[in-house]
Amino acid sequence: MTPAKQDGINFYTRKWVKPEDLNANGTLFGGSLLRWIDEEAAIYAIIQLGNHRVVTKFVSEINFEGSAKQGDLIEMGLVATAFGRTSITMRAEVRNMITRRSILTIERIVFVNLSEEGTPAPHGYSTITYRRDRMPTTHPADE
Amino acid sequence: MTPAKQDGINFYTRKWVKPEDLNANGTLFGGSLLRWIDEEAAIYAIIQLGNHRVVTKFVSEINFEGSAKQGDLIEMGLVATAFGRTSITMRAEVRNMITRRSILTIERIVFVNLSEEGTPAPHGYSTITYRRDRMPTTHPADE
Amino acid sequence: MTPAKQDGINFYTRKWVKPEDLNANGTLFGGSLLRWIDEEAAIYAIIQLGNHRVVTKFVSEINFEGSAKQGDLIEMGLVATAFGRTSITMRAEVRNMITRRSILTIERIVFVNLSEEGTPAPHGYSTITYRRDRMPTTHPADE
Amino acid sequence: MTPAKQDGINFYTRKWVKPEDLNANGTLFGGSLLRWIDEEAAIYAIIQLGNHRVVTKFVSEINFEGSAKQGDLIEMGLVATAFGRTSITMRAEVRNMITRRSILTIERIVFVNLSEEGTPAPHGYSTITYRRDRMPTTHPADE
Amino acid sequence: MTPAKQDGINFYTRKWVKPEDLNANGTLFGGSLLRWIDEEAAIYAIIQLGNHRVVTKFVSEINFEGSAKQGDLIEMGLVATAFGRTSITMRAEVRNMITRRSILTIERIVFVNLSEEGTPAPHGYSTITYRRDRMPTTHPADE
Amino acid sequence: MTPAKQDGINFYTRKWVKPEDLNANGTLFGGSLLRWIDEEAAIYAIIQLGNHRVVTKFVSEINFEGSAKQGDLIEMGLVATAFGRTSITMRAEVRNMITRRSILTIERIVFVNLSEEGTPAPHGYSTITYRRDRMPTTHPADE
Repeated sequence: MTPAKQDGINFYTRKWVKPEDLNANGTLFGGSLLRWIDEEAAIYAIIQLGNHRVVTKFVSEINFEGSAKQGDLIEMGLVATAFGRTSITMRAEVRNMITRRSILTIERIVFVNLSEEGTPAPHGYSTITYRRDRMPTTHPADE
Repeated sequence: MTPAKQDGINFYTRKWVKPEDLNANGTLFGGSLLRWIDEEAAIYAIIQLGNHRVVTKFVSEINFEGSAKQGDLIEMGLVATAFGRTSITMRAEVRNMITRRSILTIERIVFVNLSEEGTPAPHGYSTITYRRDRMPTTHPADE
Repeated sequence: MTPAKQDGINFYTRKWVKPEDLNANGTLFGGSLLRWIDEEAAIYAIIQLGNHRVVTKFVSEINFEGSAKQGDLIEMGLVATAFGRTSITMRAEVRNMITRRSILTIERIVFVNLSEEGTPAPHGYSTITYRRDRMPTTHPADE
Repeated sequence: MTPAKQDGINFYTRKWVKPEDLNANGTLFGGSLLRWIDEEAAIYAIIQLGNHRVVTKFVSEINFEGSAKQGDLIEMGLVATAFGRTSITMRAEVRNMITRRSILTIERIVFVNLSEEGTPAPHGYSTITYRRDRMPTTHPADE
Repeated sequence: MTPAKQDGINFYTRKWVKPEDLNANGTLFGGSLLRWIDEEAAIYAIIQLGNHRVVTKFVSEINFEGSAKQGDLIEMGLVATAFGRTSITMRAEVRNMITRRSILTIERIVFVNLSEEGTPAPHGYSTITYRRDRMPTTHPADE
Repeated sequence: MTPAKQDGINFYTRKWVKPEDLNANGTLFGGSLLRWIDEEAAIYAIIQLGNHRVVTKFVSEINFEGSAKQGDLIEMGLVATAFGRTSITMRAEVRNMITRRSILTIERIVFVNLSEEGTPAPHGYSTITYRRDRMPTTHPADE
């Protein structure tokens, strides 16, 4: 795998913790957090690989370093750390927007690039794009 | 109202349009869009006013300029355009991340700053912060 | 556009405000309200135009006049105020069922009638029906 | 129990069947239907008994007479059929708005009126109100 | 109908009652319970009949014997009580996992076995399987 | 940490994959899977530690070995593998109910036992219970 130039994490998607996101103890449900970061990683991978057909393949150790409660503002950040032939590896962090304290970090989330048949396919990229110039030419809703 | 220095919209929160977001015709449900932009505006207002107690007061005309379908990536952008004594006015745009074509624009979303008693209260700000230095001193989960 | 005979708003769909509908301050989330009224408007438009293929095109200024909290009963009302060649315009109000105080009013919600190809199409109606006699001949689930 | 004057069912709340409401076979999920009718019955009981503290106690046989699919418009109807000392009994029907064919009927849904301590309490009513004049004096969000 | 050998209810699926499952009084929403038990019954029927095409046809009287609140652990149990030519009848119970007190019992939930055309079809079984040996040969996602 | 006697995974909670669980490619959304397994692990930990106050602390590497699509039946299994002074470690597997092929495995999910003040607290257990005899004496809804 080619190591990607690591420019640090950029934080994008934000959430306002609402009652529907809480567990039975009234704190942010860990499962909701995992769901949010997985969607954000999928978006990041699609942009980088120029392909809508991507799937989660592997998630490395997850440390829940902090917590969150109703009304907290949190944000999710990602950066590509390596491009494999048919995969992309990302580092992820979720943090409190106000205090910037970390809630969760994941060193490696690996997504695989799929062909139309659903099998791993080379994507041809080895560096991060910041320009959204890898335009998908197919669309799941058209197939 | 003091006009805010207008630095253009910054896009943050992103969504991957999934089956749960569709209307019965299989395109992105307008109500989901409105729900997403309202949450994003609340987050923006809290950061700018340093107060968790903010409520939607007014939304100006909404033009649905484009649409979206399953698998589309969209992003939501906001910028403060005016600070009133007890309010903040924002301009919003939702667009397709790949094509950058606009899906929805709203010229004015007004949120009101509330006191602990729930009545409009002066917030003391007249310009946009880019530093998250307006730390809320109370938290809804502690009250 | 032909002005429709205005017979006043009829209130139909009702909601019991539950924890899943609240924002982080514990009051009814504005985005939930907008989602509900958009679904109700879609239902109204389908009945009036006899066509399942309708989309939200425009929403005029929205005033959030009141609020609601957990346990409140609210109801949503609509009335067609104008029929264009390919569109229908409605007035909407959301109010508390018990106190009848208004929570939100929208002067104009415009939906567009679409052909099977997804382009604006004439609907041929200029007055409100109260009889559900405009039977859609196609169905989204059959296409 | 005092038999209530039976004026027939009034249909109020409406739903537009969306992908989120479907089971894995692509038809309307029976569990969603049951959830909707239970919420509607709670609203009806609160209005009739002038008390927010009501709970589902009994549901008689449920016949699923028809089905629904994505894009269908359905409506839910209820009428009180008997007032007990601490209970109210309702008849319910869910039907297709366009064809008016029945989807589900339930002869008896019984809700119990509760005191602030959560025990069955007399409600003092024996007839249907059509005027919403039974104003609850307490509110769940204030307790 | 052939009476099935009745080996008692087996409890499988478990739920942790979260804020999203509550009604406006802060107790477990009856509609959520009904939704959960209907999904569980569908799973049970699919396994027993070896066919994904099953629909809820009838639910007998439902007694809400107990309640649940945020943080409670509950479990859902089912057992087939009769196999008809094209149907299966199940008995269901929902109970608190810790106290084992019953929350809801239903004597008969009837599902119908459907052909690919969506009409009732013989399933050929008359006894309960405990081995998952009735492998569906078609799959809803492939049709 | 004391190694727990390892009796193999027991599978309990089951899911029927519905449209609301899919990602934009129409396969089971990885984030939904993670949400389900986290809830199941919380339930398991509460039963073993006799305490409602438990939080996810750590999740080891996650391998997505298989996938699932609409209509699939899946089941989630857990077993405690170690009891620390204030923690419990579990092994988890999600698999297809029919084919029994693995969808996801996690070697270690660690939950921490909390005191009423929300700090790690000794739980006093070192072996698995199969009898639900570790009755929580406090309840989140009563605090």
